[in-house]
Amino acid sequence: MENSISYIDKVKSHILVHLKTYQHSETIYNASKYSVEAGGKGLRPLLLFTALEALNTDISKGLSAASAIEMIHTYSLIHDDLPAMDNDDLRRGKPTNHIIFGEGTAILAGDNLLNESFNVIAKDKELSAEIRIKLVETIATASGQAGMISGQMLDIEAEERPTSLDELETIHAYKTGALITAPVTAACIIAEAVPEVTESLQNFSEVIGVLFQIKDDILDIEGNPKITGKNIGSDAKKGKVTYVSELGLEGAKTALQQKETEAYRILDSLDELIETAGLRKIVQMFAERDQ
Amino acid sequence: MENSISYIDKVKSHILVHLKTYQHSETIYNASKYSVEAGGKGLRPLLLFTALEALNTDISKGLSAASAIEMIHTYSLIHDDLPAMDNDDLRRGKPTNHIIFGEGTAILAGDNLLNESFNVIAKDKELSAEIRIKLVETIATASGQAGMISGQMLDIEAEERPTSLDELETIHAYKTGALITAPVTAACIIAEAVPEVTESLQNFSEVIGVLFQIKDDILDIEGNPKITGKNIGSDAKKGKVTYVSELGLEGAKTALQQKETEAYRILDSLDELIETAGLRKIVQMFAERDQ
Repeated sequence: MENSISYIDKVKSHILVHLKTYQHSETIYNASKYSVEAGGKGLRPLLLFTALEALNTDISKGLSAASAIEMIHTYSLIHDDLPAMDNDDLRRGKPTNHIIFGEGTAILAGDNLLNESFNVIAKDKELSAEIRIKLVETIATASGQAGMISGQMLDIEAEERPTSLDELETIHAYKTGALITAPVTAACIIAEAVPEVTESLQNFSEVIGVLFQIKDDILDIEGNPKITGKNIGSDAKKGKVTYVSELGLEGAKTALQQKETEAYRILDSLDELIETAGLRKIVQMFAERDQ
Repeated sequence: MENSISYIDKVKSHILVHLKTYQHSETIYNASKYSVEAGGKGLRPLLLFTALEALNTDISKGLSAASAIEMIHTYSLIHDDLPAMDNDDLRRGKPTNHIIFGEGTAILAGDNLLNESFNVIAKDKELSAEIRIKLVETIATASGQAGMISGQMLDIEAEERPTSLDELETIHAYKTGALITAPVTAACIIAEAVPEVTESLQNFSEVIGVLFQIKDDILDIEGNPKITGKNIGSDAKKGKVTYVSELGLEGAKTALQQKETEAYRILDSLDELIETAGLRKIVQMFAERDQ
């Protein structure tokens, strides 16, 4: 897994080279760069590269798709933090984009990262046109109205009224799950995996997407603010429905363990077809992370 | 040209069918639909279809690219109208998106139209993968940091200090010109036009892009508010640099005529290679429009 971890830095530089090369506004470049550099742990690229390794495919082939997904994740955070949305001043301990650059520029920088994400894939002439256009379709479907954007909308609407656990699961499946499934599906497209493997890996990614969210909700209560970069109980204060608010802290931890077991079980069933060691480490990392 | 004009309605319904089919939030669908339906004259789709006719290619092949460009145009208006940007309450005589749906939803609806524009092209299985990915690259380059988004940023920054005519031309080339060139380039990609024709038609589209903007600036002063749907002198009031503020009203009209002549001259040079009648009507329409 060393390979896939070392590749995360390549994603950031790949994004920045693209942003620098094809631009006509220093302000847009600087504002986009700020949030790419302030960016997180690169879990989505890591997932994509690890899935490519599991499928015995050169991970360099995933650089443009991983960059696109990371750019989309970054734009969604810029827009989410705006005063008209979550109104957050801090993200991972740093001032949010609109605090530094102003709201108008933050809106445009977010638009830019979304727009250019598809351009990064289109410009990757190492991949066939067939694979590139399938990546565009898969990623746009995960990030748009069939996925993340609808999840963000449903999440905003859910703050205004009582919400059930079922509804919470639906919201998270769209809001965060879709963009955790996308890197795994992207890897299957790039590796031209057989349908049986693709389907199992998609199931796997859905399970670890839920696991990821449960852990997020637990960290909101139990996390170390110095490590997570956000205040304790910030979701609770906003009246957000979380796995902890619905199941209690112990209930959420039990749900986490169940998802962990489920994820390993899917990998067991794939053991004869692909190399699952890297993906097993991802499950562990998602479950045990402290940020 | 009857064909290409009648095709504009098909663009709106094509967009709405896509938006309705692949969504998981009624609010996002309704907010996106509102601005698509409030949408304008469909000049960019008209240009794409007319260029396809000139290139003797079935205009139905341009439906997804025309839809994508119109969706991008629409999203840019939603975000442009936001309080953090131009802060406009009215657009074409109707309340702007954020006035009806609120700022947060308007931001997400704009994101959605941008995101889904590339999905519409990716899902168009009538076009080869090669053509679809070229369309994604061409359109993303026109609408992103190499085109429209940088133009919007430069435009905002230009309001804060004196601006020259040269600078004004650069801003408009990115802000509006790129998305007027894109439909013409898209038509050349779909028709697989020879490089000589593509190059001339791109020059043509750049000229009519400037012509379009000069006319816009003249209409801001001379237009009928009941027809244009905006107040007289609204750009001037915002302190925007326009062709009229730089050249005076008569100077702007002379510049308009010069661009008209230049556009016809390019079409003259193409007369033996393609059917230019429809494109000539477009020049006339751009120069003589009252909205």
